[in-house]
Amino acid sequence: MTPSPHSPSPSTAVLSPEVADALAGGRPVVALESTLLAHGLPRPENRTAADQVEDAVRAGGAVPATVAVLDGVPHVGLTAAEVDRVCADPDLAKLGVRDLPIAAALGRSGATTVSSTALLAARAGIGVFATGGLGGVHRHAGDTFDESADLTALSRTSLVVVCAGVKSILDVPATLERLESLSVTVVGYRTHRFPGFYVADSGSPVDWSVASAAEAARVFAARRELAPGAVVVANPLPADQQLDPGLHDRVIADALAAADAAGARGKDVTPFVLGHLHEASGGATLAVNVRLVLRNAELAGRIAAELAALPC
Amino acid sequence: MTPSPHSPSPSTAVLSPEVADALAGGRPVVALESTLLAHGLPRPENRTAADQVEDAVRAGGAVPATVAVLDGVPHVGLTAAEVDRVCADPDLAKLGVRDLPIAAALGRSGATTVSSTALLAARAGIGVFATGGLGGVHRHAGDTFDESADLTALSRTSLVVVCAGVKSILDVPATLERLESLSVTVVGYRTHRFPGFYVADSGSPVDWSVASAAEAARVFAARRELAPGAVVVANPLPADQQLDPGLHDRVIADALAAADAAGARGKDVTPFVLGHLHEASGGATLAVNVRLVLRNAELAGRIAAELAALPC
Amino acid sequence: MTPSPHSPSPSTAVLSPEVADALAGGRPVVALESTLLAHGLPRPENRTAADQVEDAVRAGGAVPATVAVLDGVPHVGLTAAEVDRVCADPDLAKLGVRDLPIAAALGRSGATTVSSTALLAARAGIGVFATGGLGGVHRHAGDTFDESADLTALSRTSLVVVCAGVKSILDVPATLERLESLSVTVVGYRTHRFPGFYVADSGSPVDWSVASAAEAARVFAARRELAPGAVVVANPLPADQQLDPGLHDRVIADALAAADAAGARGKDVTPFVLGHLHEASGGATLAVNVRLVLRNAELAGRIAAELAALPC
Ligand SMILES: [Mn+2]
Ligand SMILES: [Mn+2]
Ligand SMILES: [Mn+2]
Repeated sequence: MTPSPHSPSPSTAVLSPEVADALAGGRPVVALESTLLAHGLPRPENRTAADQVEDAVRAGGAVPATVAVLDGVPHVGLTAAEVDRVCADPDLAKLGVRDLPIAAALGRSGATTVSSTALLAARAGIGVFATGGLGGVHRHAGDTFDESADLTALSRTSLVVVCAGVKSILDVPATLERLESLSVTVVGYRTHRFPGFYVADSGSPVDWSVASAAEAARVFAARRELAPGAVVVANPLPADQQLDPGLHDRVIADALAAADAAGARGKDVTPFVLGHLHEASGGATLAVNVRLVLRNAELAGRIAAELAALPC
Repeated sequence: MTPSPHSPSPSTAVLSPEVADALAGGRPVVALESTLLAHGLPRPENRTAADQVEDAVRAGGAVPATVAVLDGVPHVGLTAAEVDRVCADPDLAKLGVRDLPIAAALGRSGATTVSSTALLAARAGIGVFATGGLGGVHRHAGDTFDESADLTALSRTSLVVVCAGVKSILDVPATLERLESLSVTVVGYRTHRFPGFYVADSGSPVDWSVASAAEAARVFAARRELAPGAVVVANPLPADQQLDPGLHDRVIADALAAADAAGARGKDVTPFVLGHLHEASGGATLAVNVRLVLRNAELAGRIAAELAALPC
Repeated sequence: MTPSPHSPSPSTAVLSPEVADALAGGRPVVALESTLLAHGLPRPENRTAADQVEDAVRAGGAVPATVAVLDGVPHVGLTAAEVDRVCADPDLAKLGVRDLPIAAALGRSGATTVSSTALLAARAGIGVFATGGLGGVHRHAGDTFDESADLTALSRTSLVVVCAGVKSILDVPATLERLESLSVTVVGYRTHRFPGFYVADSGSPVDWSVASAAEAARVFAARRELAPGAVVVANPLPADQQLDPGLHDRVIADALAAADAAGARGKDVTPFVLGHLHEASGGATLAVNVRLVLRNAELAGRIAAELAALPC
């Protein structure tokens, strides 16, 4: 039976032949989110980046599985034509976990966020996921309660998420506290500093560090046995590849102050601040963003390869 | 073995014959909470309302299953005499999820809230639940941490909850943020505005809207497959049946200011503000409250009927 | 196959022969945390206390199972030599749930907190756990988001936790609200006042009280059937065994004000305030701390015995 466009069964995600084959054979697979492609990067750079990210996963030793919902059906692993569609459609919805059943019932298409990619990946049997930055606790969340659904979702979903921290416009210390309260495992990859997305160091420490992809895989293997929930592997950019930290901190502080002065709150602040940062850096933020995603994808590939090599 | 009054087995709720029969036959059933009857409406109006709500579920096409705990035993579906008792007893406890095991162990009786009704309904195999308004995040919750257990419970319980939003005395935007953080699915019924209980529009939007009971049922069928958690169907009163929005907003603002000035916090504020609203509206709040519950019950009946008609 | 020191299987905790035997025979067992020993009490008093706490569990009628992670392997039930090691090693890590898989993968040793002890105990089939005080919501958590992982962990873990409340330096009312939001069952043992660790009354009420160990066991038996999550049994010190409440309140208020004035936040405040309290009481806090743990251990033993005697 072929799934109808309005199929109410997001549980039966369509796997690409290559991904289905790799999973059936116990070979390493890395999930990739599509919100980065559809909403995080400008067109047409996003289409180039899509291929680069998949290549980086392969360079790490795993099969890439980009996740998206097309006409109500979740796809884990996209064909080139499907990637074209995700990168070209300006009207694609942004679908978190709670939006997936609506898209399924209404036959809608959308890009998947960290929370929904993690869920669909874990359900398909994929243990490793690469992204740019996690969602987190927003500044002023003590008043607004604006906290990304990524955090709770990661506390319930068993997989490795490789990221470069969370965007600095969020409240990073509060985000780290929430990850702790939710019992999400967090390790730095060869660092005890939590990365700050565009910059190597967010200013906050992490308690634990892993020295290799193999160690990260072993941490996840133990977590998987013990309790539901993710292992966040925080992978900083090297100092010489990050955005200039002085510029970064100054522009963000200025833009946040300007946003506060203008009374901007919540969903308006993020694009405002990121826009300032993009301009002030002469567009360097885009290159840095792609670079950190590629590094995360490659590391995720290696962690997936180590995980597949572990005795079960 | 008949359950003793002190039976420590809330898992074995007693089903009324009609509910047991409907569930065994795969016919539509809608759960109803009893806190509305015992604590939300005055006596003797509550007894009349109890019958009207059950009738509204039947008019929608489903069997009503009012939930309560009697002498320690959870009941799903009440006899007329049991409804009498729930509506007449002024000392009935209010039992959330966490109170159910205490009532079971100590042989106590109580009305069930949204959280406990949802849990007992889902455990009995009931997929749809109608209520008036959900609990939510209280004003000043950034300081007091006063957040209804309904929210977390809905993130863990698979069923449809039809409601008219949350009472306007709560912090509605914060409540919607929390529902998002917890990955609870929220859809407006033929609206993109989140309803405000007594009024059609709380002032906050909802991202998604369903056009029919059938669409709501399909959303839930997809959610159920995908991940634990509820689908909230927000069903506003029509403009011509709501409380006068100008009166509503003015009285609530005044009463909240008076409560703040008097230093009232938390559990004291709600009855204070609702009392003011009742007086200022010349008692119209009671009629509006019953009306919205009846509408939710009828819609829930239709959603349950559509759900029962879906191929499994 | 014997587990290697770097075994990535925290699921296969090593049980001491006595604990394994008791569990296999359906006899009562009480889990004990090791953070109290390693980080909560000074050396060498901690070693004496370790034996006293185990003896108190036995006096209550159960087998004690002190939990710790040694060389990456979780142990449930320690030999005397293992207790020596936990009490003597000044470098032992403090391991919450999210740290367990890291310790397993990296072969590290550590003391277990409330969250991780509860998880490992429940996985081993132990239904009752005794500790001193729970972690909770920190003062200023509306800004800092500093909330102990104990709270969410208890909402997901099925067991009885006997405690004397939470330390008064936390935000006790906010902690009780969070426990309610998370649907954790809370009962006072022969009291309707939530205890304040060193003092019998924290100033906050509890809704429900149990009159006996048997009632507590029946509450848990019901909870276990109904939904995941803990039953917190709050066991106050008798008035004549508590720290002088006047001294307690005055010193904590002064120390918190001094900490605020000095701009101290989060993790620095707790040792600062507890240090003041220790000095101001002439060291009485240590004796009171041990006393309340012994009382909790003994009560936990009796609850475990009642639980083992319930028909399944
Ligand atoms: Mn948000
Ligand atoms: Mn409350
Ligand atoms: Mn903390």
